[in-house]
Amino acid sequence: MKTPPSLSPGFSRAVPEGDDRLRQVCDHCGFIAYENPKLVVGSVVRHEGRFLLCRRAIEPRKGFWTIPAGYMELHETPEDGARREAMEEACAEISISALLAIYSVPRISQVQIHYRATLAKPEFAPGHESLEVDLFKWEEIPWNDIAFPSVHWVLNHDRRSEEGETPPFFNPPGELGNSMSNQD
Amino acid sequence: MKTPPSLSPGFSRAVPEGDDRLRQVCDHCGFIAYENPKLVVGSVVRHEGRFLLCRRAIEPRKGFWTIPAGYMELHETPEDGARREAMEEACAEISISALLAIYSVPRISQVQIHYRATLAKPEFAPGHESLEVDLFKWEEIPWNDIAFPSVHWVLNHDRRSEEGETPPFFNPPGELGNSMSNQD
Repeated sequence: MKTPPSLSPGFSRAVPEGDDRLRQVCDHCGFIAYENPKLVVGSVVRHEGRFLLCRRAIEPRKGFWTIPAGYMELHETPEDGARREAMEEACAEISISALLAIYSVPRISQVQIHYRATLAKPEFAPGHESLEVDLFKWEEIPWNDIAFPSVHWVLNHDRRSEEGETPPFFNPPGELGNSMSNQD
Repeated sequence: MKTPPSLSPGFSRAVPEGDDRLRQVCDHCGFIAYENPKLVVGSVVRHEGRFLLCRRAIEPRKGFWTIPAGYMELHETPEDGARREAMEEACAEISISALLAIYSVPRISQVQIHYRATLAKPEFAPGHESLEVDLFKWEEIPWNDIAFPSVHWVLNHDRRSEEGETPPFFNPPGELGNSMSNQD
């Protein structure tokens, strides 16, 4: 299950003094390039009972549907990151109402933080990473063309939250996000 | 407030094609070294009403007290990371009961995930990053010698959780974790 992380050019693996793990160490100057899990931030965005979804214009899972989400950048809060991703991928200004879910996908060293949100204005359009963006009623969601397992989870958790369960939600029992092919 | 991230040797800053931000690009081969926020995972560990704290043996804030916490490693879940840190810093086996808090310290691009926990066995000792480890009653906690603002937050949030408030908790209003000197 564990994929060895890729090695950067000009770096070798070694255990630095005082450490107990292999790290990437520069062959020339000894600089240690620590590798860390990555944070993904996103939101389930509702508007008049419909869900905002984006069809991916980029790999992985190009052509499949997802919520607005992506890698958190330096010097932002998770909420700022979720708002930025909604603007970048769906040209949508959102209002965050609550923390919805925290998921972990250890195979690809990813932690995901998702929020409940609504459209601040009834406006959206495909950003440069999206082929199209649309609002779907629950029963219209293209369930067979969803990009990642965690998108299934988060939509269902948003629905359970709407029905009265208290968020945040976590990985479904026994699920580590590995069930879909071509996902990373 | 924003500290420019340090540049690795042999790398320059440039905006890659299709991107909209400066990234670290290798001067020799064009490899893009993305920089991402870092995840810290930790736990407030109780035993018979006392709190397990560690006195730091390393910078930053050497000699000051903290909860067992540290950077999440690749291919682990946040819970696994919190358990590993308790073992590394306090030689303590812990049982996690709930998510306690999610904090964001954007100045240093850090997201912290903390859990409520108890000692699985009444055994602990200083790990190699700790000068000493001890259990403190609430009123004995060395409040003037706490390492980081988030340690103040998380101990108080654990107490509020014990008093009946539902976690998770977030940054106190207006607080971004910048109030203590020498903290990063």
